[in-house]
Amino acid sequence: MKNGKITIHDISKALGIDSSTVSRALNDSPRVSKKTKEIILNKAKEVGYQRNSLASNLRTNKTHTIAVVLPRVSRYFFATVIAGIEETAYEAGYNVIICQSLDNLNREKKIISTLISNRVDGIIMSISMETTNYEHLQAYKKLGKPIVFFDRPCSLNNCSNININNFQSSFNATKHLILKGCKHIAYFSGSLDIELYRQRKNGYIAALNEHNIKVNEHYIFESNLSEEDGIKSAKKILQLKSIDGLYSSNDTAAISAMQYLKSKNIRIPEDIAVVGFNNDPISAIIEPSLTTINQPAFKIGKIASNLLVDQIENKTTNIKEQSKLLNSELIIRNSSKKV
Amino acid sequence: MKNGKITIHDISKALGIDSSTVSRALNDSPRVSKKTKEIILNKAKEVGYQRNSLASNLRTNKTHTIAVVLPRVSRYFFATVIAGIEETAYEAGYNVIICQSLDNLNREKKIISTLISNRVDGIIMSISMETTNYEHLQAYKKLGKPIVFFDRPCSLNNCSNININNFQSSFNATKHLILKGCKHIAYFSGSLDIELYRQRKNGYIAALNEHNIKVNEHYIFESNLSEEDGIKSAKKILQLKSIDGLYSSNDTAAISAMQYLKSKNIRIPEDIAVVGFNNDPISAIIEPSLTTINQPAFKIGKIASNLLVDQIENKTTNIKEQSKLLNSELIIRNSSKKV
Repeated sequence: MKNGKITIHDISKALGIDSSTVSRALNDSPRVSKKTKEIILNKAKEVGYQRNSLASNLRTNKTHTIAVVLPRVSRYFFATVIAGIEETAYEAGYNVIICQSLDNLNREKKIISTLISNRVDGIIMSISMETTNYEHLQAYKKLGKPIVFFDRPCSLNNCSNININNFQSSFNATKHLILKGCKHIAYFSGSLDIELYRQRKNGYIAALNEHNIKVNEHYIFESNLSEEDGIKSAKKILQLKSIDGLYSSNDTAAISAMQYLKSKNIRIPEDIAVVGFNNDPISAIIEPSLTTINQPAFKIGKIASNLLVDQIENKTTNIKEQSKLLNSELIIRNSSKKV
Repeated sequence: MKNGKITIHDISKALGIDSSTVSRALNDSPRVSKKTKEIILNKAKEVGYQRNSLASNLRTNKTHTIAVVLPRVSRYFFATVIAGIEETAYEAGYNVIICQSLDNLNREKKIISTLISNRVDGIIMSISMETTNYEHLQAYKKLGKPIVFFDRPCSLNNCSNININNFQSSFNATKHLILKGCKHIAYFSGSLDIELYRQRKNGYIAALNEHNIKVNEHYIFESNLSEEDGIKSAKKILQLKSIDGLYSSNDTAAISAMQYLKSKNIRIPEDIAVVGFNNDPISAIIEPSLTTINQPAFKIGKIASNLLVDQIENKTTNIKEQSKLLNSELIIRNSSKKV
């Protein structure tokens, strides 16, 4: 015991257990039995041992921390993905820290730089709307650490992507409106700079094509799909006079549009049938309840987390890409229940 | 340039700028002009300088990272507080990482231990429902680093608390129902182990007392205020037959109770008037729209963040407690509009 500072070796000596076992126990390694861990932890507490985590992390090159980087925690979809990630990560012995990019590339860059400093073992990420070059992500990858992307596809080399089939989801939503008799279907799209929204637009067009309905570019409204965007686009829909169906690429815009249309005495679904995307909790509660697409958000989180932990623990210089495409589900409610 | 590794001194030599200025520029210090920073950063990029943040952090003992620890990011109130924190912190040059305790004390302990390892400069925190001893928080405080609490009061020494006036908010909500003619007001409370819910219950009781209405313990329903809890308590309300007003300590339980009561042909507000708490976005959208209490969540975040950064930057061994009590606002909507 030098300078009053208790070390692992002091605990080792006091218990007659070799110091590597003591170290493993203090790092909560699964290689040490629960009973031995208990004895070591009790002794450590008794003698007032203070673990120098930073030094320990520098040695093992592991922090048992993973980071989730995404646009905004307040969106139901993202919050549910986080829940799935945390459940799996926690079971595997990893702590989770969350960072919001607010869809701002500069902020995302600062976050990645912080995560490099904090030496997180891996990142699960939905990139910002502004992220078109991946230099900052490459810097993290160069450390030999894995990134798993979800929601918004990212083509960074040797990274896994967990996504839903956006084309098929959109195709199903549009087809549902067509089968309900809609012939003039408006579509609310997110920014077409983003791969995900291009895929969804293609699904919408493919469904129209399959049913020999001419695609009308005036029926497609590109925006950030905010509440205000929903109202703005709804106003334009009314001016068109012909619209009898609306498919929106998120529930937020679908719901604000519905509220606006109702205030103008448009009947839903009789005059205009509506389908949203995301299955936000509010979609089941508003009147009429909103037909929407449910993404398996919790499952996406679990799969992403499992994959990341796998890649962290079987660390290779070249992490194999293991992408997954999941199915979504159309939930039919009253907003599209035309007879 | 030893071993091909570029150092701050190489950049200093190449530009003829002293190395402490180079170091400050690379740390984005406000003490270096924007123009000088630009010159230095460009040169650093040009020569391929890789900053060793970890070593740099060890030297300066600062990471310019603050952490937000709270029960669950998916709740609107917490998500809005985070937005306020991030806006202020980002402007002050701090990155924000977020961790969820899921109202679990063990998880909260692991988080604090991770944050100690990650050497975050300060913590903004709403403690878990299970947190009744503060040993783990004391460990962080011992490092001479500040914690600012919000939402759920915490009596840890020398820590600031940013809260709303829960007693007064509850008093106002209850009084509103009384003035609308309600005489038998049910109250949905959160766990009374928690200071915040005790304060709110006291506000409810004080309003009844002021109007000479006898407090009936059977009218008080303690739960976790989940959706299911709201339905369970609503069932019990119906059995009582006398209830003509309902005040719920969150919107989630108020709304699920309203949905249940409506399904049993109870008219709101005519038969039972309802007031919630939190002003979740959904409260304005459901029918009838819900009278509720709006907390200044964004402002709470900004104040907490400002206070924390202040305490980080004027670091003293004894951080002075600077608690604040904010006012809330009763938002009157249709669920309590009795004539």
